[in-house]
Amino acid sequence: MKTDIEIALEADMQPIGDIAAQLSLTAEDFEPYGHYKAKLSDNLLDKLSSRPEGKVILTTSINPTPAGEGKSTVTVGLGQALNRLNKHAIIALREPSLGPTMGIKGGAAGGGYSQVVPMQEINLHFTGDIHAITTANNALSAFIDNHIHHGNELQIDPRRVEWKRVLDINDRALRQVNVGLGGPAKGVPREDGFTITVASEIMAVLCLANEIQDLKARLARIVIGYTYDKKPVTVHQLGFEGALTLLLKDAFKPNLVQTLENTPAIIHGGPFANIAHGCNSVMATKIAAKLGDYVVTEAGFGADLGAEKFLDIKTRAGHFEPDTVVIVATIRALKMHGGVNKNQLTTEDLEALKQGMTNLKKHIETIEQFNLPYVVAINKFPTDTEQEINSLTEWCKQKRVEVALVDVFSQGGEGGIELAQKVIESSERKTGAVSYTYDLDDSIEEKIYKIVTKVYGGDRVEFSSTAKKQLQQLEREGHDKLPICMAKTQYSLSDDPMLIGRPEGFTITVRELRASVGAGFIVALTGDVMTMPGLPKKPAALNMDVTEDGIITGLF
Amino acid sequence: MKTDIEIALEADMQPIGDIAAQLSLTAEDFEPYGHYKAKLSDNLLDKLSSRPEGKVILTTSINPTPAGEGKSTVTVGLGQALNRLNKHAIIALREPSLGPTMGIKGGAAGGGYSQVVPMQEINLHFTGDIHAITTANNALSAFIDNHIHHGNELQIDPRRVEWKRVLDINDRALRQVNVGLGGPAKGVPREDGFTITVASEIMAVLCLANEIQDLKARLARIVIGYTYDKKPVTVHQLGFEGALTLLLKDAFKPNLVQTLENTPAIIHGGPFANIAHGCNSVMATKIAAKLGDYVVTEAGFGADLGAEKFLDIKTRAGHFEPDTVVIVATIRALKMHGGVNKNQLTTEDLEALKQGMTNLKKHIETIEQFNLPYVVAINKFPTDTEQEINSLTEWCKQKRVEVALVDVFSQGGEGGIELAQKVIESSERKTGAVSYTYDLDDSIEEKIYKIVTKVYGGDRVEFSSTAKKQLQQLEREGHDKLPICMAKTQYSLSDDPMLIGRPEGFTITVRELRASVGAGFIVALTGDVMTMPGLPKKPAALNMDVTEDGIITGLF
Repeated sequence: MKTDIEIALEADMQPIGDIAAQLSLTAEDFEPYGHYKAKLSDNLLDKLSSRPEGKVILTTSINPTPAGEGKSTVTVGLGQALNRLNKHAIIALREPSLGPTMGIKGGAAGGGYSQVVPMQEINLHFTGDIHAITTANNALSAFIDNHIHHGNELQIDPRRVEWKRVLDINDRALRQVNVGLGGPAKGVPREDGFTITVASEIMAVLCLANEIQDLKARLARIVIGYTYDKKPVTVHQLGFEGALTLLLKDAFKPNLVQTLENTPAIIHGGPFANIAHGCNSVMATKIAAKLGDYVVTEAGFGADLGAEKFLDIKTRAGHFEPDTVVIVATIRALKMHGGVNKNQLTTEDLEALKQGMTNLKKHIETIEQFNLPYVVAINKFPTDTEQEINSLTEWCKQKRVEVALVDVFSQGGEGGIELAQKVIESSERKTGAVSYTYDLDDSIEEKIYKIVTKVYGGDRVEFSSTAKKQLQQLEREGHDKLPICMAKTQYSLSDDPMLIGRPEGFTITVRELRASVGAGFIVALTGDVMTMPGLPKKPAALNMDVTEDGIITGLF
Repeated sequence: MKTDIEIALEADMQPIGDIAAQLSLTAEDFEPYGHYKAKLSDNLLDKLSSRPEGKVILTTSINPTPAGEGKSTVTVGLGQALNRLNKHAIIALREPSLGPTMGIKGGAAGGGYSQVVPMQEINLHFTGDIHAITTANNALSAFIDNHIHHGNELQIDPRRVEWKRVLDINDRALRQVNVGLGGPAKGVPREDGFTITVASEIMAVLCLANEIQDLKARLARIVIGYTYDKKPVTVHQLGFEGALTLLLKDAFKPNLVQTLENTPAIIHGGPFANIAHGCNSVMATKIAAKLGDYVVTEAGFGADLGAEKFLDIKTRAGHFEPDTVVIVATIRALKMHGGVNKNQLTTEDLEALKQGMTNLKKHIETIEQFNLPYVVAINKFPTDTEQEINSLTEWCKQKRVEVALVDVFSQGGEGGIELAQKVIESSERKTGAVSYTYDLDDSIEEKIYKIVTKVYGGDRVEFSSTAKKQLQQLEREGHDKLPICMAKTQYSLSDDPMLIGRPEGFTITVRELRASVGAGFIVALTGDVMTMPGLPKKPAALNMDVTEDGIITGLF
């Protein structure tokens, strides 16, 4: 089979104006960025308010493994399949970050015959959204240091500036830096660090805002650090929410592209899935729902992190609900959850598969707790045996779980017809509202306890002494009514990445609590979370080139 | 009179496709970026090779003063005036940098009724070129630190990494930083610093490359630092020229916009005018020459820096020559060169004006030395008296210097008709080739001596002991045949900013020499050059906003 980039470069793309026309958009509703990308007006929601809303389909998965689940590929393939069934389907995805693209081989735009295109542009600078966020984030850092330098009227404690600088690059040498060195002309010395741009609170803010004034209000609320007497200092006190909004006004507009089969796709926003909520923007999903009969969207990592945050954070911020959920699993990954080693996945192992299904089972229960219908999608790999597939489908049938075999990677939309049909049926089965994991009025401890017991299947929560102090501080500052954003390993339902399958009886330890007041959630950190990746010894960038013939190589 | 932003927002812009059609470009020659910006194909030069070349007009000025000379405004107004005379004129300008826009009031896209539009977009993220350069520059930094971290095969001395990180932000706290702190997982500690993006060598490389493979070859030659035994280390040795080229492939395409009067304008590249050459890209100027009968372009600062580098560096790299030069002067600025204080410029002072003309005289002589015809443009201010204007025009007539009174700021192209007519005549008067200031085969010392004596009117050059050592090193490394890029104060012909007018008998001290091997020049530093600006106590950003009605405020 051809490589992803070979397939992508052969795509028969339609001019983006034709894709827009297909969605009944007029010339003032979008701005072209090149021939195959466009920015949608952020006034579209107002303009389309009388249009009915399409069904929202959330794609999630079991806990990820090195075997790969292909959640984005299934998301794109499902959209293409719905289109083949003559449904107006539209896909809403996250924007990929450049840092990892340069570091380790791999894009973030689906795979095989289920990709969004032009993938080489989507995976490079795209329409500049992430660069605008980098700029706004670092402008704020400069404003903070400038304030301290010029008299420090707000009495910001340089030791307690929590706002970090960012770059959309994997660069371990920037994890911890000292800035302001070299004497009075070069600012006030202090300890600082860079995170990757997608971990900036501004990314989360952009993804959760409902319109541009909401964006500005959220930016204004961001807490950048503390004064010498430990009072929080906000962007509003510094007076820069207007300038930051101006820097973000175009980045706030969702981006329209298409799939290999010309299904419209909106790609917008890409916050980290641990210290942030890991979903594309509220704006994108809501506009997509106005433009299509079916919106297929995804959330980062497995259902314990991505779907939980999609439901408890994103849909609350955006005042909408999904209609159904697709839970993606692969035979390979289930076998890994059953204890099989990565290099033995091609050998049939029905016992391990059965063991691994306990992980799938937990995520099914979680979606049921949210009171949402769902379909399990088995994302087929060439090495899956018939016995293995039968074993998994039989198990689903016994449990009265809707299941569909999917092969969108090698067949495109055609390989997702069965799933599409079941998803259409499933989206009609929703009864009543989503049942959130916790009430916003619950205490922070209660909220975390409910996530741990209901979603992770754990027994207890422990708070470090630091976290306990922070708990009290957040209550004092009145931030305890915000939803919780858990930062936990994606590899396990627990906070120990080695505990695969369906661990039980475990305790989750909350090491630290941080308020992302602008984004509107409290981050609960369990274990170390790396917010600035490093590069491998031989980065993927070494293979990249633009040849004499103008051909791009090495990107994927 | 209305403010710049008020005028700009009222502009009757044509869709960018219409501007492109006016230049006989077809759909595959450009990609729209929104409704009023486009990127031109970097293959255009090949495609248009059989078209005749238009006349290239270089706009330069006397030494800048706080009174302002309005060089960009005259450049834009002249293009508009040529258009009014039914000439196919096209303007080629530099891209503004975001950092200063956020810091101090002011855009870089002309003024009054001679502006390029959409100015708010041109002054914000534009088409993302500068962000792409930031990304490429910092990716290279990450690759360097990653190489050192993973065994340092090339034996790069962490104390001798000369490649700095960049941001397009005014941020004094980043002038000197320590990176790689915090232990083995966070890289190798070393001293580093950030410059503003437009000071990145990659910006100069992008502006001097003739086509994308030349861009790659120049990137490959960049020297990032030295080994423990003081051997230069290049990007090619690291192996990342392909990846950097890929990151820059879209930024390398010139941007098409228009003026308030719908005259086409190509805005592309904006290197610093001290440590770099301060001109828009070779690609932009050469494509403009293929698309218009007249190209009006400018170079940074006064003729001693901008025009000299345009001629001795840019036209040599691009293998082209201008046909005529416009030297911009204002009565106000000439009076300052004659000793008048900034707050007394509204008082008539014929004596000071006469004194100040010595500065203009020197720049006229410089352009004559280059063997180029020229016109002096008096950029009119409302406070200029008739006596003062008469005095200056009389002086020009006595000296047989072509002179035109210009009022393009308040009248648009109409205020530049006289200048346009004289420029058309002047562009026919060119006799023979440009006479460069120095031969490339001259020694570094000879080249600098010739610039100082012929262009600055100084007597002597002194080299610091550091510079002397670097001189020998550059010769050893075989870089002594490159042209020279002088980094000198823009306020004086000498290296002392206080020596206004036409100082004589002075010595220029070269403090340091640096090879920008990728860009293809040797930077000779005289005095301190600040490559990362700071912010004032109350940055312009404080006044910026996006109002409830969606109106942008405070940008200019």
